[in-house]
Order: sequence, then structure tokens, then C-alpha cells
Amino acid sequence: MTIPIDLRRNDLHSLQEQIYTQIRGLILNGRLAKSARLPSSREMARDLGVSRNTVLYAYDSLKNEGYLDSRDNAGIFVSDSIPDRCLDYVSDGRGTRLLDREPNRRPELKLEVTAPANVHLDRARPRIDFWYGRFDRRNFPLNTWRRLINENLSRAGSNLSEYGAPSGCHELRTAVSSHLGATRGMSAPPERIIITAGAQDGLNLMCRLLVQQGVRVAVENPCYGSAALLLKSYGADLRPVSIDSSGLIVEELDATDAVLAYVTPSHQFPTGATMPLERRHRLLDWAQKANAFIIEDDYDSDFRYDSPPLTALAGMDRYDRIIYVGSFSKSIGPGVRVGYLVLPEALVQPALALKSLSSYGQPWLDQIVIADFIESGGYRNHLRKLRHRYHESRDALVAGLRKFFGADADFSGDGCGMHILWRLPNGIKAAVLVAAASKFEVGLYSFESVGAYEVGDSNLRENCLVLGYSTLSPAEVTEGIERVAAAVKSLAA
Amino acid sequence: MTIPIDLRRNDLHSLQEQIYTQIRGLILNGRLAKSARLPSSREMARDLGVSRNTVLYAYDSLKNEGYLDSRDNAGIFVSDSIPDRCLDYVSDGRGTRLLDREPNRRPELKLEVTAPANVHLDRARPRIDFWYGRFDRRNFPLNTWRRLINENLSRAGSNLSEYGAPSGCHELRTAVSSHLGATRGMSAPPERIIITAGAQDGLNLMCRLLVQQGVRVAVENPCYGSAALLLKSYGADLRPVSIDSSGLIVEELDATDAVLAYVTPSHQFPTGATMPLERRHRLLDWAQKANAFIIEDDYDSDFRYDSPPLTALAGMDRYDRIIYVGSFSKSIGPGVRVGYLVLPEALVQPALALKSLSSYGQPWLDQIVIADFIESGGYRNHLRKLRHRYHESRDALVAGLRKFFGADADFSGDGCGMHILWRLPNGIKAAVLVAAASKFEVGLYSFESVGAYEVGDSNLRENCLVLGYSTLSPAEVTEGIERVAAAVKSLAA
Repeated sequence: MTIPIDLRRNDLHSLQEQIYTQIRGLILNGRLAKSARLPSSREMARDLGVSRNTVLYAYDSLKNEGYLDSRDNAGIFVSDSIPDRCLDYVSDGRGTRLLDREPNRRPELKLEVTAPANVHLDRARPRIDFWYGRFDRRNFPLNTWRRLINENLSRAGSNLSEYGAPSGCHELRTAVSSHLGATRGMSAPPERIIITAGAQDGLNLMCRLLVQQGVRVAVENPCYGSAALLLKSYGADLRPVSIDSSGLIVEELDATDAVLAYVTPSHQFPTGATMPLERRHRLLDWAQKANAFIIEDDYDSDFRYDSPPLTALAGMDRYDRIIYVGSFSKSIGPGVRVGYLVLPEALVQPALALKSLSSYGQPWLDQIVIADFIESGGYRNHLRKLRHRYHESRDALVAGLRKFFGADADFSGDGCGMHILWRLPNGIKAAVLVAAASKFEVGLYSFESVGAYEVGDSNLRENCLVLGYSTLSPAEVTEGIERVAAAVKSLAA
Repeated sequence: MTIPIDLRRNDLHSLQEQIYTQIRGLILNGRLAKSARLPSSREMARDLGVSRNTVLYAYDSLKNEGYLDSRDNAGIFVSDSIPDRCLDYVSDGRGTRLLDREPNRRPELKLEVTAPANVHLDRARPRIDFWYGRFDRRNFPLNTWRRLINENLSRAGSNLSEYGAPSGCHELRTAVSSHLGATRGMSAPPERIIITAGAQDGLNLMCRLLVQQGVRVAVENPCYGSAALLLKSYGADLRPVSIDSSGLIVEELDATDAVLAYVTPSHQFPTGATMPLERRHRLLDWAQKANAFIIEDDYDSDFRYDSPPLTALAGMDRYDRIIYVGSFSKSIGPGVRVGYLVLPEALVQPALALKSLSSYGQPWLDQIVIADFIESGGYRNHLRKLRHRYHESRDALVAGLRKFFGADADFSGDGCGMHILWRLPNGIKAAVLVAAASKFEVGLYSFESVGAYEVGDSNLRENCLVLGYSTLSPAEVTEGIERVAAAVKSLAA
């Protein structure tokens, strides 16, 4: 018999590999039946125009794996013992399922995994888009990036070819340490910093370390949905705490009996409230009294417009209780996937062990580039530039709302960050306005669609919009609000 | 009074920020006492040579934060209500600890975190180092990397400034899919692939999805320690299964009552056994019968020397039960931190939800560069080159052991991978030889020091060494083994 084998001399695979693979395929898709006799290695070599050793090598491999048998001097045969049911696995890709798909003893999945919708991924956006927290690609420091990458590739040494420390690259931890000292009033030695793949990865590490089934965790109500869902996924018993215009109401914490709290004191998400100094001290006191840890998510504190940034909770933490979560996603870009944790001393060793058990660490090149960006002063200039742009857009947004919706337009969170929360006038429902605005090519986003999470009822969900302005120029903001006003008018008509 | 404020005109911080920060510092370190009166904004402006608005801005911020009070027309004072204990937090960095450091109600840490020792990190190595699984920096494709990075930076578009899909960049999933089809006989559509930060990150995701307290997980005995510790950290009840020269003994699985198994069929870690076809089929049958999932860790299947690679378990999986874990750490370099999972259909959606909840995804640039490297054929050439080098070193190692320790030198795992397991002759103890060899500037590593994990007793731990050869030239290997022979001789003396 002649076996249909098609050899390519310039293939990346050697000739013996090609012979092996093709015969195996013929057996598995049934074109070479069980017990079928194969040509001798000599015949096959002649047919294919290759050396006999080449064929012998392929045959030996197939014999070793049980596809072929050699029966004394009778020749080479397809094995009898290949299980029937494997014979069609190549032909139809997967074969048919022989048994019930539903497992009866499969380990129970630990959780109902509920992840926030990835609105991020839908890049077809309306002409004027008030999506929250988005980073404008025109603001990415591409030329600096290219230069720093090339410089560091030249001196990469073994950094690309060896495992790094699970805590992250020392240069970056040092740079983050000095940046946080200068901008957030924090005394965070590099030894207490762990580099992560963004803020969410840092939160995840902390949840895995601290949260188990039934652990009571206080959260702002409303709060950042991705954090709430992550906490719940580890079994946390979420205890909602009300907020007012100064953020989380500390007095309510005692009643929660919580041992962990997740807070956003710089710019409460989504209301934008900033927690004043006095309340921060009371929050720290609660943590000490309750023997609790506090996770401080400082997600957009780099953008504060009307006053210098407040000292972070972690900068005031005399009790070693604050877990500080930071990220470069909002200041450099989410595509670089770098963030960091600053940990209480008591948590450093367990967190490092967990980090090395979970993923070893982050890519070296991304880390060293950010480290150089910070140390050179480029990052602070970049932040200043961003802050200036966002400031102008924020001003246009505030002015636009007042112009088109009256001096008493009701919004909060304009002192900081990349969004405000707008309480809609005249009983307009958020969902209705979102739909109407889309006809005017304006993207508006409700409370829920930006991933805000709320326990129980409130009127925020129905009556508020989260207006992000970080990718819009002042002129675009103004035009956008004018269009929103037209959309509102169209509702009345 | 005059306040000691030192303004810098060319500072990155504005003048009002500098005034704010310095006054805050003076209050916090006690140099401005409670109730101390500050100069009026007019006086201060004159003293400092700045506009009055600049001072007013700083004062307002300090008042908003509770550092200063203005008492009607009496002037501006340091607030009375700053808690006493915060007054020294700047001066001594952290202040003293007022209460017991030990928590009484702190959420229990979920686990005794036990991570493998990071032998990787100690880069001061003996002259000839048989460390396992190390990647030689001379083999890193640096020029290609530089070219691909620069090309992709030029067309980065919004990829650096937006979130990517949690599953990873589409181009890379497509490239991995075709690579696995060609080299591992797998039909793995990109939709079933999730890009991870290396194999360990993929394992971690799977453990988090599937393992909870008490879930029975079958592991090879001995097995890869980082996997065993990770499984245990999620509460797995590890059920050891013996291995022989064909890997895991499938017959023992029934008695384990396991619902998940972790296996390394290509090159069992650490013994190096390869599981033959027939046993692979029986392993799959067990999974189906037991309604179990199997994690196939294919950690160094790229390097197979004497025959074509075997089809992966995942390539034979007609039951949708194989979770395939792969990585570029051993083939490109650990510093790039990229790996992947190929999932059973049933697990794709929960795993993606979990991935987006945990860390969103991997850095885009690293992914696109690897995708291009694969698609251009460069990766296959690179692998072939590595395979050739490792093959030569492997040959030198086998020849050296036979030359210096006799034709019956007892080792396994030489068909594949980057290490062999050597059973020491004449009752020599591993620890003793490791110490002796270090005097001859040779790095040898015991079973445990490479992270192998064993349940119960065996003689492997005491009597075996894991010899890695991936960073050694054939000449270095030969010299190394000659030195080991000298070390053995020195023991007898």
C-alpha cells in the first residue's frame, strides 16, 4: 500500500517529524485502520525519497507511543490496542460526548462569579462620550515610553531571562516610595511596597489574604462595584455604611462589627466626596479600636484641582492598619497594567509569600520604564499636564451644567478626579436621558453602567449620571452638555 | 510671628501648594502649636513676596481640612481640634504605638502561606551551576524583541491607554492556538484560551475557581512543589499518587476519590518520566468516570530530543475535562511573565469572569510582541535553536555521567526538558554531595531545593539530585561532571 504522506523539505519540522505526525493523523482519523499493515521502512524511504533512518525514527516513535506494533518479522502494523473511541478525535475535532455533561461529583465552583460588564471594551463610542475614568490615548507619553524602553532593553542583562522578586523591581518600588512621600504625605519604604498588575490585582491579593467566608467588611454605600464583587467572591459579608458630603460616616462603623473596611477617601466613588482630616482621624481610631484593617483605594487622587492633595490615610496611619492601593492605570494608561500596594508591616511577609505563590511578579520592562519615568521627573510633568487638561475640562463641565441647567445644578465630586456625579433635575430618570442623549450622539452613563454598587435602595441609581470628562476637550464638554440640554428638551416635547 | 516657610519659584509644586504643605508640616510636627495665631494673609503675602490670593488659597485649604480655624475677625489660628496623637506623626515617621499590636478580632488569615524559596533570586552562582530550569540570558532574542516592540509601539493606537480583554490580546490567543495545533496536536480555538502572567498565574486562577476547603486533588508523588503549595493554600486535600517510569499510575486514582488531578505527563516533575499514549487514554477515562477535571502542566514540552512531541492530553480530550497550562517562561524568558490556559468549554465563562474580577488582563505590549514572534515563524526558529543547544548539553551530561560514574549511572528524564533526575551511586547522600561540590565551584541542587514536593517518605529526597543543563554549554557540562566526580572522590578520602 502507499501511504498518503506529503513532505515539505523547507518545513520547520524535520522530515521524521512530518512522517510521524502524518501517520499518527491517518491512524487517528481512521484512514489507517487497526491492524493495517504499513510499508516496510525500506519501501517507505524509497517512496518518499528519504533515508531509511528517517523513516525508522518515525516508526520507532509511533511504536513507543503505542500507535504501531511490529510483529516479529511479519512487518509493521497499526496497533490493535488503540482505544476505539480515540479514532475519531481528529476527524471531528472533539468527538461525541459519551456521558452526561453535567458532573455529579465535580468540585463545586466556589462562587457565583459576577464580574462588572466590560463597557471598556466597546470602543465604538458616541461622538461625545462622558464615559467615566477613561484615559485619552493622545495623553499617553509615547515618545518617552519608546525612549525608555529602548534604553532599558540595552541594559536589560538577565532581567528578561530570570525571575524577578515577587515584590516587584526594586527601582520601581523606590520610585513609588519617593513619589508617595512627595505627593501623598506617606512615609512608605520600598520594603512595604508590592508592585501589582493594577489596582484590582492588588485588591485581589489583599482579599485572598484577609477575607474568608463570613468575614464582615464595611463598604461605602454606594461604592466601587469591582471591589464589592471581589470581596463578595471571597465570601465577605458586606456591611454597607452610609456616606454624606464628607464621605463615609465613621459613626456607623461600630454597628457593622466589621474587621475590614474598603474606602475611597480622596474622591469617594461614585459621589466624589472628599473625606476631611478630622474624619480621617476618626476612621483610623475606629480601625485601631476594632482591630480592623482599612483598604484605602486612592484611585484618582493625582487629579485634585482646587487645593493641594490631602495626606493619604496611609500617611497618617500610626497604627499600621492601612492597606494603600494605587495604580498607574488612570495616570499613564490601563494597557501598561501596573499598580502597587503599600502594606502595613504586619502584612508584608504573608502578602509576599502569597504573591510569589500566585504569580511571582510583574514583567520587568514595564516596571523599569515607569521607574525611570518617575525618577527623571517626567512623570510629575506628565501628571501636571494631565491635571491641567482635566482641570480645564472640569471647568467647562461645571460651567456648562450651570449654563444649561441653572445655577443650582446639583452635582458633586468636582474637586478631584475624572468624573462628577450629577443629580438630574425635574425628576428626569437616568435611563430615559441616556436613551435620549444617544440620539444626539452623546454617551451618558448611569450609576450602574459605570460599575457603582449599592446595597439596598436609594434614589441615586435612578436619578444620577456619572459624567466623566477625561477624554473630552473643554469645547467638546460644552458641546456635549448643550446636546444633553437639547435631549432633555426633546423629552418634554 | 514669622513662619519659617521656604518657597522655591521653580518647584514643580505651585507656590500655594508649597505654603500649604509647609504649614501643615509645621502643625503636624508641633512647631506650630494648637491655637497658635498665624499671620494674616496680607502679612504672610508680604513676608513671602507672593500675591495675597496665593496665601488665601493655602489658608482656605488648611481650614477646609481642619488644620486652621478662623475666629470671626480675630484672625487665623491653628485648630484646637487636631487630635493630640497626630501631632508627632511627621516628626517620627510613624509615632508610637498606643495599643497592643496583636489584634483580637482581626480576620483570620486564610492560610499558612508557604511559598517555595526563591532560589531564583540569588544570582551569585557557582562557576558551573546545575540549577534547574534556568533560562540563559544569551538565548534571549533581544534584537527581535527590540524590533517587534518598536514596530508595535508605532501602531499601539489606544492599546496602551485602554483596558484590553481579560482573556488577553486576540492576536496572541490566535498565535498560541495555531502553535499548539502544530506542536501539541491540540485543537484549541482562541475562545478557549486565556493569557496569564505565566503558568503559576494560570494555576492560581484555576485553583481559585475550582478548589475550596476539603476538595480532594490527586497529585503525582513527588510533584512540582509550587503547584502543591498553591493547591493546599486553597484548602485542597492532596491525595498523592505513585509514579513509575511512565509517570502517574492511573490505577491508583480510583482510590483517591479525587475530583481534580494535577499532572505533568510530558516530563514528570521531577523524575522526567513521559506518559505513553495508552496511559494517557486511561487517565482521560478516569477523569470522565470520576467526573473530574485534570490540570495538565506542560511546562517544558517544547524541548523533546529523541522523538517528536507527544500529543498533549488536551489534544486527546474528548470529554472536555483537560485544563492545559502553558508558559513562555521556559522558552522566551521568565522576565516577560506571559503564559496561557486552554480551558474546557464548561470553564471558559466562569474563568473569564474570575480573571476580569482579579486583574482584568496582561500588559498589551508584551502580548503583541509574542504574538508577532510566533506568527512570523521566529518563535519556531528560536525554539529549534534552543532545542539544539539543550540537546547538545543533554548529550554531554549523559555522556559525562556514564564516563565518570559508569555505564549504569542511574538517571531519568533525559528525553525531554531542561533537567534530569540523577539517583546517586553508592549510597552517597544528596546533601553531602551538594556541600562537597560547592568546594569545587559546582552548584548542585537536591530534590527539595528545586521545589519538588513529596508526601510521605521515599528515598528520592535523600539520594537524588536534579541536574539542570539549560544554561551550560556541553564543555561546561563535561567539566562540571568531572568536578562532581572529584567531589565524590573527596568524600571517600
